[in-house]
Amino acid sequence: MNELVGGIEAGGTKFVCAIGTGPDDVRAIERFPTTSPEETLQRTIQFFKDQSTELGPVAAIGVGSFGPVDPHLNSSTFGYVTSTPKPGWKDTDVVGPLCNALGVPVAFDTDVNAAALGEWRWGAAKKLDCFIYLTIGTGIGGGGMINGHLMHGLIHPEMGHVRIPHDLSRDPYPGHCPFHGDCLEGLAAGPAIGERWGQPAEEFPDDHPAWELEAEYLALALVNFLCTVSPQRIIIGGGVMRPHLFEPVRKKVQELLAGYVDSTSITDEIDTFIVPPGLGSQAGVLGAIALGQRLCNS
Amino acid sequence: MNELVGGIEAGGTKFVCAIGTGPDDVRAIERFPTTSPEETLQRTIQFFKDQSTELGPVAAIGVGSFGPVDPHLNSSTFGYVTSTPKPGWKDTDVVGPLCNALGVPVAFDTDVNAAALGEWRWGAAKKLDCFIYLTIGTGIGGGGMINGHLMHGLIHPEMGHVRIPHDLSRDPYPGHCPFHGDCLEGLAAGPAIGERWGQPAEEFPDDHPAWELEAEYLALALVNFLCTVSPQRIIIGGGVMRPHLFEPVRKKVQELLAGYVDSTSITDEIDTFIVPPGLGSQAGVLGAIALGQRLCNS
Repeated sequence: MNELVGGIEAGGTKFVCAIGTGPDDVRAIERFPTTSPEETLQRTIQFFKDQSTELGPVAAIGVGSFGPVDPHLNSSTFGYVTSTPKPGWKDTDVVGPLCNALGVPVAFDTDVNAAALGEWRWGAAKKLDCFIYLTIGTGIGGGGMINGHLMHGLIHPEMGHVRIPHDLSRDPYPGHCPFHGDCLEGLAAGPAIGERWGQPAEEFPDDHPAWELEAEYLALALVNFLCTVSPQRIIIGGGVMRPHLFEPVRKKVQELLAGYVDSTSITDEIDTFIVPPGLGSQAGVLGAIALGQRLCNS
Repeated sequence: MNELVGGIEAGGTKFVCAIGTGPDDVRAIERFPTTSPEETLQRTIQFFKDQSTELGPVAAIGVGSFGPVDPHLNSSTFGYVTSTPKPGWKDTDVVGPLCNALGVPVAFDTDVNAAALGEWRWGAAKKLDCFIYLTIGTGIGGGGMINGHLMHGLIHPEMGHVRIPHDLSRDPYPGHCPFHGDCLEGLAAGPAIGERWGQPAEEFPDDHPAWELEAEYLALALVNFLCTVSPQRIIIGGGVMRPHLFEPVRKKVQELLAGYVDSTSITDEIDTFIVPPGLGSQAGVLGAIALGQRLCNS
């Protein structure tokens, strides 16, 4: 496992590329904005080419991508970003150009599954069989591991698009999702908060009333994920998920469950049940490295 | 796999006990009402004792139980029904008395996970890695398999207790769940339908307006399960899930997803994506047999 591996956190807003072997050994890292697929992938390829002259070749690359994606190895569109509304990126082959230009095996999954893998290997999900990783930012995404495998199925989870109760008399905001209006992402992602209050969410002080509503929506979604999957832990990252939000979210989850899920993890130890990523904002790119490492001989 | 195995569908309303090797080979079956734990387990034990003189001994027994249950093998309360509101059954050891009295290994899981296993082995989920099994009856339960394993985690899924949008101006019924009021089960299980309309649900004709509302609530929940787990199929059984409900549920799921989950399984083949159990009303007890078979040497 000491071979150098590349990781690419392919986000809808920015790409993060890194080379290393783990959280204590990141040899190179670069961030740049996500523009057109051609330009962005070209810049990614250039990063690895430039670095390889200095650091030597990488044994594999892992990509954790914004989505929806096709993560099925035996599919003809494996490694593609598929039905995304992001301009220019619909049906874009991400893995193919990287493989061809760099000549190394490339592993591919959703950004949230990659981050989940990173947390499982080095962060807040060590030794867990079953956990969920959520990110609350410009969008809302979720992934995780069940029985020690990353969550895949028909395609992959799209946890941001669950429907939750929305009391229009209290919050008349119709929601921001172009597909579903007031799904979770439509009500609780960064742009929804900003649009509801007419001001970017990142400018709000911690005591802004936006956060009480945000904690309630997140707690409703968490209760649903918990009742559906029964995870041993829920990790929440992303730019919108500020530290002060954890306490009201935890409290509201307990209140909504009303003692029905009879586990001390929820009744007594919720501070270690709903937690921030152990790897902080590097969960994504380190997870991509962890994804790539699975292609190497151990 | 030709050894005789016992199966117990331990429901909150009735117990079904059977002995056999699969759907085409059920040698004995008996149904009786669920009364006190002592009386009900005694009657169960008597069934297996009586039958063993005729059919010979069973190699193992599987139990699919109403819940919540403790399915963790290494727990001190493995095989218990735990925090159920059902009078007399809270913290009841189910596996212990059966093991002691019958002297055979006993496998134990939720009723819905057992039914899911039966469907995977012989019914509508053959060869699938990832699917969900739901039952809509006196309560609503859900289980399934992910990556070829039955769904467990912190405890086990409690899919009946997810929160879904509830438009009080259209449906002022406050919900029937003693824990959560208008969670899915509180809005859409049999007793909720009956109470809302002042008449038992089973007496309603197929064109009763209750079913349109029912289809909508079920579709909202299905969309949430689908976005959370990404199953390859959803199987729905239970007394409330009448055949005429499948079409409106499928249509509403497509409408709610609005093309976001880009899979022909949903856009073109939803008739084979949301389906009734292949084993019909015997999914539960056959699944319990399948559960018991996993304890036998193959």
